[in-house]
Amino acid sequence: LHVIRENDLVLFYDGKRRKYVRTVRVGDRLETDLGYIDMQAAIGKEVGSTVSTSKGVRFYLLKPTLTDLIFTFRRPTQVIYPKDAGLILLEADIRPGMKVVEVGTGSGFLTAILSEYVGPEGRVYTYEYRREFLLAAKRNLSRHGLGSNVEFKLKDATRGIDERDVDVVVIDIADPWNVLRHAWEALKPSGRFASFSPTYNQVEKTCIEASKVGFIMLHTFEVLVRDIISDETRTRPASRMIAHTGFVTVGRKAVPPEES
Amino acid sequence: LHVIRENDLVLFYDGKRRKYVRTVRVGDRLETDLGYIDMQAAIGKEVGSTVSTSKGVRFYLLKPTLTDLIFTFRRPTQVIYPKDAGLILLEADIRPGMKVVEVGTGSGFLTAILSEYVGPEGRVYTYEYRREFLLAAKRNLSRHGLGSNVEFKLKDATRGIDERDVDVVVIDIADPWNVLRHAWEALKPSGRFASFSPTYNQVEKTCIEASKVGFIMLHTFEVLVRDIISDETRTRPASRMIAHTGFVTVGRKAVPPEES
Amino acid sequence: LHVIRENDLVLFYDGKRRKYVRTVRVGDRLETDLGYIDMQAAIGKEVGSTVSTSKGVRFYLLKPTLTDLIFTFRRPTQVIYPKDAGLILLEADIRPGMKVVEVGTGSGFLTAILSEYVGPEGRVYTYEYRREFLLAAKRNLSRHGLGSNVEFKLKDATRGIDERDVDVVVIDIADPWNVLRHAWEALKPSGRFASFSPTYNQVEKTCIEASKVGFIMLHTFEVLVRDIISDETRTRPASRMIAHTGFVTVGRKAVPPEES
Amino acid sequence: LHVIRENDLVLFYDGKRRKYVRTVRVGDRLETDLGYIDMQAAIGKEVGSTVSTSKGVRFYLLKPTLTDLIFTFRRPTQVIYPKDAGLILLEADIRPGMKVVEVGTGSGFLTAILSEYVGPEGRVYTYEYRREFLLAAKRNLSRHGLGSNVEFKLKDATRGIDERDVDVVVIDIADPWNVLRHAWEALKPSGRFASFSPTYNQVEKTCIEASKVGFIMLHTFEVLVRDIISDETRTRPASRMIAHTGFVTVGRKAVPPEES
Repeated sequence: LHVIRENDLVLFYDGKRRKYVRTVRVGDRLETDLGYIDMQAAIGKEVGSTVSTSKGVRFYLLKPTLTDLIFTFRRPTQVIYPKDAGLILLEADIRPGMKVVEVGTGSGFLTAILSEYVGPEGRVYTYEYRREFLLAAKRNLSRHGLGSNVEFKLKDATRGIDERDVDVVVIDIADPWNVLRHAWEALKPSGRFASFSPTYNQVEKTCIEASKVGFIMLHTFEVLVRDIISDETRTRPASRMIAHTGFVTVGRKAVPPEES
Repeated sequence: LHVIRENDLVLFYDGKRRKYVRTVRVGDRLETDLGYIDMQAAIGKEVGSTVSTSKGVRFYLLKPTLTDLIFTFRRPTQVIYPKDAGLILLEADIRPGMKVVEVGTGSGFLTAILSEYVGPEGRVYTYEYRREFLLAAKRNLSRHGLGSNVEFKLKDATRGIDERDVDVVVIDIADPWNVLRHAWEALKPSGRFASFSPTYNQVEKTCIEASKVGFIMLHTFEVLVRDIISDETRTRPASRMIAHTGFVTVGRKAVPPEES
Repeated sequence: LHVIRENDLVLFYDGKRRKYVRTVRVGDRLETDLGYIDMQAAIGKEVGSTVSTSKGVRFYLLKPTLTDLIFTFRRPTQVIYPKDAGLILLEADIRPGMKVVEVGTGSGFLTAILSEYVGPEGRVYTYEYRREFLLAAKRNLSRHGLGSNVEFKLKDATRGIDERDVDVVVIDIADPWNVLRHAWEALKPSGRFASFSPTYNQVEKTCIEASKVGFIMLHTFEVLVRDIISDETRTRPASRMIAHTGFVTVGRKAVPPEES
Repeated sequence: LHVIRENDLVLFYDGKRRKYVRTVRVGDRLETDLGYIDMQAAIGKEVGSTVSTSKGVRFYLLKPTLTDLIFTFRRPTQVIYPKDAGLILLEADIRPGMKVVEVGTGSGFLTAILSEYVGPEGRVYTYEYRREFLLAAKRNLSRHGLGSNVEFKLKDATRGIDERDVDVVVIDIADPWNVLRHAWEALKPSGRFASFSPTYNQVEKTCIEASKVGFIMLHTFEVLVRDIISDETRTRPASRMIAHTGFVTVGRKAVPPEES
């Protein structure tokens, strides 16, 4: 049987739009605008069942998904959305057991995704030169028990990447072209880079430099997600959408012609 | 050093559009419209370097990615594209170590992706009631060394799903609503289903039935990917795109109100 | 020379986001959060030049476009956006000199567009069964000198359309299928209808009924517009967009097989 | 009554995908892969009714729309699609009675649209420096009785535009920035330009130059159209779409600050 125990991470969900991720602790309270919930009331209840607030509103008790967790992160910077991260996994071929370098930890949003998908047998090395960002990201992950396979590095990757024989380098900084040569050095032959940038200008510079450095099969794409609203007799796309986060460029390391 | 050995899977790539995935065997030849390559010539060469055809055209020797492999599958049916699969991974929270049921094996395209992302510690149970499809899918995977954690089941899942305590049920059949009750039974509380359908009518029926059965947090979306073409002075979206493959609906298992 | 005269319609524009359409009258003031402008100060100035507010902020004096004008309309209902109206003009072939029936006046947004594009030699008959909407729409147009070729009809078009030999019937009501038979009667042979609906369900019912009634060449489409932000070194799609307003279905009147 | 007469332009339509625009002449034959039609058989028939081929396949007899006509044009160059033209009409405020300059006649596709929408009271001046394009465009229009209000000018507009007091300048050449100063001279104050370009690099240069020259309210957008396929029980977006034709930039002429 699946029951909530003390110290479990729980997603409290009101069935509509309110979502709260909390570690269940005896004596703690979850305050909501629909009343409060004594955490103790959740303990021993079945996962998927409901608990009522002081005002009698029911909240579901769910296990948070990875996406639930990362959306609780403090995000001082723009983040790579699941829509982008999902296709990066497949296009850059990031899989369990792999060794991945991330350039630009930011808020740790993508770090958490990489960490989970390379899994316990894999490893993530994440570079961030701004100390406060690195610490915040580390806290974001550790608070929810994420990131045990992540090494947080307070370093500017445009000056060099320490690792070798890496499967994938993922880049989310403003000047990705400045790190491509180091990415090439760090990667295994046939290894991939994936770079995320909001503007066309960055895409262009990235592609030009990537070619020079010896990456092939360059491919740039943009992911758009439309939400669909469906009730019993009316189904339609949502009125608003996130129209743009950024472009993703991927490429693979080849041996430059002169050396091959 | 990374060198090509006999029996390695290799992606031969001409630097433009031609891609061939082959198992390197002494005595075999890769025939292309740009001349042939004696496989033997590839053995001992560094991964990422090139080999020349009989007509002097260079092909890169690369390690195929998962996506390279699945696009070699014979596909008698429509497939779930990487763009859709990538976001399904994140939205349905499919991660290493998980237990996943797939309803509708089809050509095994998504089966291979699920298999790789739940990893060696995870497990995939895939249902297909058409024998020839199941066998073809099995061959598609095994030919490339994929699917060691997959159980192929010649069964109609609309009559029932055998597994229990499943993390995620992924559905790719024409009548997903007929399998939702069984999916609910098979899932852990808080477990997810993800259903893929080309038409809005299917989405509507799926959402109605999913609500009835006891799924919550229903969310339907559509993923669009635009390719961007970039050369040194001209960057623009590609002229053509795949405008629609299907809609994805995800939901989570809750304990129905009357029971909770 | 183009100078502003008393009683001219003027668009006051601050060079950024503030836009005010006003009829210039001596003694009137335009109040803005950046100070006020005495209308008199605009009179005699060249179109395209600037005038300063009481706080010294410059506003351009421009001739309002049709789009500037309609966005000043009071809009109690959802409106058909320029993106949709523009393609309706071409797909339903609405041109100067034509006779057009509009079913569902709403706020008069589309009425104004139809009126302007059929021009002084054309004519628009617009049906609205809700008196307060019809009057508000009429005011919206007449306030800006629009609509001299429009006949406003307080009638429910689902009970019948009076006109005959019409070039195009444009429909923007919740149940377009209920007016298609009347539209067919009203249209010239080879005449077109264009129907606007937010949901897939409406599209489906409209297409089914349109076929039955004797319309051919049915075509449904959806228009999406992405804004692009460009400054000297950074060009990118805007982060947010209107993802959906509605679908447009067009068709042409043929003589039903049994009669032809 | 609407009947087909000799010398009428007729759209022959098989009810599916085949469309032929022809001038009906006694003695002529329309050859199709579904048999031939003697034109004489169409004369005297009602518009919207059908005529049968020698193989007994029925074709509808319709009045061609403007869009039907322009898609018959010979198109050596890329054209501005109805989706783009429709929004250009509204965003650049091109209406009956206006005076419009077109830079880059190309195949005359947009010329025909501009000509029809400014109507008999309006006028279009179209510039093309390649004689063979200009002649072909002229033929494209006159063959179908279009363009009586168009002046075709064999001139390079980057060297100057002759007209003054123009309402709108529409630009469809590879280097729009080279014509913006001339466009500014030609336009009325508050007049608009609209420029169409496939690449973001062109957009960026156009915006920079437009600002310098004295255009304000610059706005760049991209129009996407999704076709929706609907039959009685299955409605869905089409699988393929035209993902990109070009970006449109519009702006309005203001008096430069130093002069105002």
